[in-house]
Amino acid sequence: MNESLSPIDLLVTNGRFLTMDPDLPWIEGGALAVSGGRITEIGPAAGFEGRPAARRLDARGGIVMPGLVNCHTHAAMTCFRGLADDLPLETWLNEHIFPAEARLDEEMVYWGTMLACAEMIRSGTTCFCDMYLFEASVARAAKEAGVRAVVGEVLYDFPSPNYGPIEEGFAYTRDMAARWKDDPLISVAVEPHSPYLCSAALLDEAAGISEEAGLLLVVHLAETRIERERSLAERGLTPVGYLADLGILSGRLLACHCVWLDDADIETLRAFDVKVAHNPESNMKLASGIAPVPEMLAAGVCVGLGTDGCASNNDLDLFAEMDTAAKLHKVHTLDPTVLAAEQVLKMATVEGARAVGIGAEVGSLAVGKAADIVVVDTAVPHLSPMYRPASHLVYAAKGGDVRDVMVGGRFVVRDRTLLTVDVEELMDRVAERCRNIGR
Amino acid sequence: MNESLSPIDLLVTNGRFLTMDPDLPWIEGGALAVSGGRITEIGPAAGFEGRPAARRLDARGGIVMPGLVNCHTHAAMTCFRGLADDLPLETWLNEHIFPAEARLDEEMVYWGTMLACAEMIRSGTTCFCDMYLFEASVARAAKEAGVRAVVGEVLYDFPSPNYGPIEEGFAYTRDMAARWKDDPLISVAVEPHSPYLCSAALLDEAAGISEEAGLLLVVHLAETRIERERSLAERGLTPVGYLADLGILSGRLLACHCVWLDDADIETLRAFDVKVAHNPESNMKLASGIAPVPEMLAAGVCVGLGTDGCASNNDLDLFAEMDTAAKLHKVHTLDPTVLAAEQVLKMATVEGARAVGIGAEVGSLAVGKAADIVVVDTAVPHLSPMYRPASHLVYAAKGGDVRDVMVGGRFVVRDRTLLTVDVEELMDRVAERCRNIGR
Repeated sequence: MNESLSPIDLLVTNGRFLTMDPDLPWIEGGALAVSGGRITEIGPAAGFEGRPAARRLDARGGIVMPGLVNCHTHAAMTCFRGLADDLPLETWLNEHIFPAEARLDEEMVYWGTMLACAEMIRSGTTCFCDMYLFEASVARAAKEAGVRAVVGEVLYDFPSPNYGPIEEGFAYTRDMAARWKDDPLISVAVEPHSPYLCSAALLDEAAGISEEAGLLLVVHLAETRIERERSLAERGLTPVGYLADLGILSGRLLACHCVWLDDADIETLRAFDVKVAHNPESNMKLASGIAPVPEMLAAGVCVGLGTDGCASNNDLDLFAEMDTAAKLHKVHTLDPTVLAAEQVLKMATVEGARAVGIGAEVGSLAVGKAADIVVVDTAVPHLSPMYRPASHLVYAAKGGDVRDVMVGGRFVVRDRTLLTVDVEELMDRVAERCRNIGR
Repeated sequence: MNESLSPIDLLVTNGRFLTMDPDLPWIEGGALAVSGGRITEIGPAAGFEGRPAARRLDARGGIVMPGLVNCHTHAAMTCFRGLADDLPLETWLNEHIFPAEARLDEEMVYWGTMLACAEMIRSGTTCFCDMYLFEASVARAAKEAGVRAVVGEVLYDFPSPNYGPIEEGFAYTRDMAARWKDDPLISVAVEPHSPYLCSAALLDEAAGISEEAGLLLVVHLAETRIERERSLAERGLTPVGYLADLGILSGRLLACHCVWLDDADIETLRAFDVKVAHNPESNMKLASGIAPVPEMLAAGVCVGLGTDGCASNNDLDLFAEMDTAAKLHKVHTLDPTVLAAEQVLKMATVEGARAVGIGAEVGSLAVGKAADIVVVDTAVPHLSPMYRPASHLVYAAKGGDVRDVMVGGRFVVRDRTLLTVDVEELMDRVAERCRNIGR
């Protein structure tokens, strides 16, 4: 018990605490103190008796857990949610998504991202890692919505509707990094799209910026079979092998998807401590394939969970994504023991935070970390009765069960009401901007 | 437009109507009239102007659709939700589920089923087909909750904790059928567990009762690879081939799971018009395998959707199940065009109703059918913007988005409040009864 008499800004009580701390994963009937936006104490409730607190949050018997981390998304693609589905990939991209994206501008990305933030925050996601165009708008929306974000302008060989030629893309990225340096919520990443849309020179320069500024490097990697086959045909190297050959693999690289890997690729990812964002629902919906996640985990690769964009999911609910991840790999391996609930919870919290480069800051309820906290209401029929809370979080809970959300000690959802965004106005604005898309 | 002046008990207005009627799948700005528990008129709103109605339901721009049909569950297994997961099948069954089931009695099945009914109704399911022990309690709970159900006592070779020897099981089934004959909500089915727990004589007698009384016959079939392999080893026949050999295949048979089929099995199912209940999430979680649903649909087999019991899912949300079904088969076949949203909606409504033998009564919004109607609130961030409502229902909506539910013309949920069950008391009762399970 912590007997310090430091003042408490907020005291969270009356919950089952899922800390995601390996030493003390669950505290039944615990309490948690927040001061200055950080977790200052956590432990059995008895240790907090009689302590004054400026504010209190009664978890009403629900589960108190770290906010979820969405390791890979394109937030503003909410604008294209349900625009086109169930089509061959080329048709879907060329006839629907690319023409719609040609209409993007700063404002549309801002409103689409704001809609994504509203959805993510309400469903318990307190941090997302984004790759898209007009990322200054993404940072602005996330900051206003009060959600933590790792943002990075997508870089590729052809001219961008945002920055134009690639040199400007590097400058834009550097400017973003300078603009948001030391911000408590927003981090900037360097984000070359993929080995197939980026030259070796581009990838090398991007990796250089990442290294020089200590920024996360994010890339799509080995998403589809055709990407792997073309890489092998053109270079005699797998996509992972190609990046290794370029010398840009490191513990600061987040590789998104990693569906088509062989054993040597997995060993390479492990050897360089490359992080992986697993996006099962998007990989399923686009028929990309099933990533070898049990094999990556067995090898010791850090794997986080992501939703990918709304055009290929079509929602941003990480609770549903956890459920899908846990089930998909069981049926794929015909082994019901892989990706157990506790393992999947790690992917969505503490491992996800590591994957996006902020594992020291968030991902678990631990003293010193930022207070990114979610309360799940378990007094609902579909979470009754309760034997093992971890099971319910993965296999039965949905984003709609989230009752309270705090990011960096600030309430963003209270009693299911989003406090930072006017949701009605937001939906109207997005609908208005999307009226002519797809027509 | 229908100009009849028949009185209207309830008029539903201001919605996007998804009828699931092939001739007129969508009516934007339509209206629907209910009288005597049935749909009496449906069409453009203009046709209803000035018509008096005893009550009105304003859909507030949401989607009005047929209630979902859960083709296969063991409702009372809510009692074991999350009791044990992520285990080898034998361990899970022998060390957790079977010992827990040994404690079952009429009251526990009643309360467990009531909890399932509460969850299903709130998430838009208006009809479920159940197989379990103490099915008289299941019928009683469903009737009280106001949900439509097809119920059948599970029959197998060994003595049942409910009815004892199998002869009593047949008598119990016949008594149930007599008790609920002509009930507007409850139908009775004959439900031999499976070819591996039922002798040929049992299966034959069960099929005879089904035929003589015109009842649905329900069986687990070809769920696991080992079931198929043992059937081939012991009889030289696949599970489907074995039932064909026994002469019990017919259009009145609902075969649950059908995971391990070959092309000849699929052709046999089609030839006899056997109906199939597909339970993707349970098949995934138990690592049973992936049913050849695209192949069955291509062959013309009627396939409905089910959740299976809560111990292997672990919830009863058919919206989530639709999402999983649509995505699972895409990634399994590496073809993003299979199981399109509209196809999956059919499985969960009109085809599901056919599969459980009540396709003439429910499954679509059509004049003469029972008024089993759901209103989905689409004014939420994760269903915005809206291009194609069918896409949102399958890929983005959750059970929690259901705002109003009516079964047979009776409101069971209004503005997200369950009207037929005291949910707080229900959860307390179940928690109390389950306190010592798993200890």
